[in-house]
Amino acid sequence: MKIGIMGFGVVGGGVGELIATNAESIKRRSGEEITVGKILDLRDFPDSQYKCFTKDFQDILNDPEIGVVAEVMGGTKPAYEFTKQLLEAGKSVVTSNKELVAKHGTELLKIAKDNNVNYLFEASVGGGIPIIRPLYTSLAANELTDIYGILNGTTNYILTQMIKEGETFENALKGAQENGYAEKDPTADIEGHDTCRKTAILASLAFGKFVDSDEIPCEGITKVTLEDVEYAAKFGAVIKLLGITSRAENGVYAMVCPAILDSSHPLAGIDDVFNGIMVRGEGLGDVMFYGRGAGALPTASAVLSDIIDTVKHKDKHIRLGWSEGQEGYLLDAKTLPSRFYVRLSKTEAAPETFAKKGYDVITLDGEKYKDEFAVVTPEMTGYEFDKLVSVDGELGGYNVLGKIRLVAE
Amino acid sequence: MKIGIMGFGVVGGGVGELIATNAESIKRRSGEEITVGKILDLRDFPDSQYKCFTKDFQDILNDPEIGVVAEVMGGTKPAYEFTKQLLEAGKSVVTSNKELVAKHGTELLKIAKDNNVNYLFEASVGGGIPIIRPLYTSLAANELTDIYGILNGTTNYILTQMIKEGETFENALKGAQENGYAEKDPTADIEGHDTCRKTAILASLAFGKFVDSDEIPCEGITKVTLEDVEYAAKFGAVIKLLGITSRAENGVYAMVCPAILDSSHPLAGIDDVFNGIMVRGEGLGDVMFYGRGAGALPTASAVLSDIIDTVKHKDKHIRLGWSEGQEGYLLDAKTLPSRFYVRLSKTEAAPETFAKKGYDVITLDGEKYKDEFAVVTPEMTGYEFDKLVSVDGELGGYNVLGKIRLVAE
Repeated sequence: MKIGIMGFGVVGGGVGELIATNAESIKRRSGEEITVGKILDLRDFPDSQYKCFTKDFQDILNDPEIGVVAEVMGGTKPAYEFTKQLLEAGKSVVTSNKELVAKHGTELLKIAKDNNVNYLFEASVGGGIPIIRPLYTSLAANELTDIYGILNGTTNYILTQMIKEGETFENALKGAQENGYAEKDPTADIEGHDTCRKTAILASLAFGKFVDSDEIPCEGITKVTLEDVEYAAKFGAVIKLLGITSRAENGVYAMVCPAILDSSHPLAGIDDVFNGIMVRGEGLGDVMFYGRGAGALPTASAVLSDIIDTVKHKDKHIRLGWSEGQEGYLLDAKTLPSRFYVRLSKTEAAPETFAKKGYDVITLDGEKYKDEFAVVTPEMTGYEFDKLVSVDGELGGYNVLGKIRLVAE
Repeated sequence: MKIGIMGFGVVGGGVGELIATNAESIKRRSGEEITVGKILDLRDFPDSQYKCFTKDFQDILNDPEIGVVAEVMGGTKPAYEFTKQLLEAGKSVVTSNKELVAKHGTELLKIAKDNNVNYLFEASVGGGIPIIRPLYTSLAANELTDIYGILNGTTNYILTQMIKEGETFENALKGAQENGYAEKDPTADIEGHDTCRKTAILASLAFGKFVDSDEIPCEGITKVTLEDVEYAAKFGAVIKLLGITSRAENGVYAMVCPAILDSSHPLAGIDDVFNGIMVRGEGLGDVMFYGRGAGALPTASAVLSDIIDTVKHKDKHIRLGWSEGQEGYLLDAKTLPSRFYVRLSKTEAAPETFAKKGYDVITLDGEKYKDEFAVVTPEMTGYEFDKLVSVDGELGGYNVLGKIRLVAE
């Protein structure tokens, strides 16, 4: 079986490397020898071990020997058009392209089904962590109720630097860029967009209907301060950026936001660039997946696992259980109850008055903290909380310096 | 598709319950309605929602409507004979029976292949944690190098009680029995046999050749004392019962033993009846799976995931990559280097002399500990360590009160 690779960047190069070095175990697992037939990239790679480069997509599309194509070019243009044409031509496509899957997954899966081929995307969430396939295989017998986790290594690295090293957000981001953990333009990571796409993919797959990432409320970590981290620590907690989705009777909830997690929570100890994904099902209880969520070889190994799976399922469409979306299926996350952390400047407000009202009060020692404190509200909906911190609300009279949702176990 | 259930105990009852309650999502996932055709059990269940009980195995074997059978009776007799006959009759079998898989997996997989049906056993390791299937699917593209983890909930509960509550082994075991976490005869758990079978299954599957659980060096937790737990704590570590297997050039290593793990190790925080399994692959890095390793519904959900998979793979044998064993394939684990913890009574020996020789020395305060101390040796093989604590060895002159292997990250 020959495969095509579209995009010979970090992940594409990793796929090529793994196919070359793991040939024997791949054959043992798939039952066939897998070789690289053609590689599409506009750049030249004179030093590569591969000599089958092309700059013309048609060369892959029209090569009858190529049965599976790894789309690892990223973005939606031209990946969307290419993928569509390949599937329509009866070739399976496997991808690490979370943007494309989150946006056009429903349509591409339908085209794959209609042409009796496969569109698989294990590498789109969690790098080398096997999370996508378990959702449609091992965990398929469960009525899953919740999936939430740390889905982005860059932001987790930044938060870990703030928590463990006392770095400011700005310095931690700079360090992440210097270490190659963050891109020059880190927007997609730090604003939560990457986590949001992954959350949409997990929700669509786990609960069966497409969830549009554009409709998921999404907040990144740019407003998280070192002060917030220290209040959280005093409260016995850490701040993590979470993608959260849960099933309800009439639809699903989903959101992306920084969250305060008790230190004893299994996700609280997941540091640096690692990812951790918690899956909860009726009967199943909690299952957690943990590992390096990015990187060339982990991601490439996930792509390759999909290639092997398509080779094993020649002429057979693998049912993922991801069907079309539905108006009103994504429910309003602001109706969910939660406790909230709020950092307040100490104007007239006395911490004691809050303690009396059932708030937890957190104070920190030192000159820096003499004019402020933090509270943790009782449980309330997002709407109730908005009202609380609005101009005429209970906290509206004070200067709100920061606010973060608490996520309980 | 009708299924048979053999054994209507805790897991079998759970399978029946899940099929009844999750009918819709099972149909969505598998593409077919799945119902229970016959249940084999010698007992009567007059109150069950099911009315299809039989006491005669032939009723299942000869029922042409039954295409898949869940063998959840445990033990090897008569499960082995039954499974063989079912596979030979062209029925797929899925199981939670780790004893049978560890002992006869190679033969049963071959019979399944010859008859173009499947023998699957996701539920045999880790309860509801998806670990078996990822090894032959998502992680199949990797050259895996190490698998190790906490594979037995009972012993982990006991050790957690010792570590967190300061219970003695005996009291913790009694508590586990009272809570239903340990059986009346806890031998298989506390002597490590259960962990050993699971380790053999993981090794056979991950590295491709059968490893016999009877040949794996196996030590349980019966010799672990509260004192060991306290020395470990002072050393910044915890004691966990681990199943360990790793690949080498000429074969594989495997062992089951209590191990001292640094508190920062991802497995160190896995407490109570939870399991955690760490998988390491070249390129992949470390991936960890965590969840409730036992219990009726988690285990039943794993059985059911295999049922769904066999329904999706009708007339198609799923290649697991587990082939026959080979003389000398299981290597001698005593040749592996490690550091070792040794607890010594303070006869003539002065802790200082050990510190000078490159040992770490651990002392504890209090009357109870005035006549003893512990050391952690430099790295050495199991043979070198045996020699060290033998009559004429360096530690042989002292009274060795306990010894435990250290497992580094």
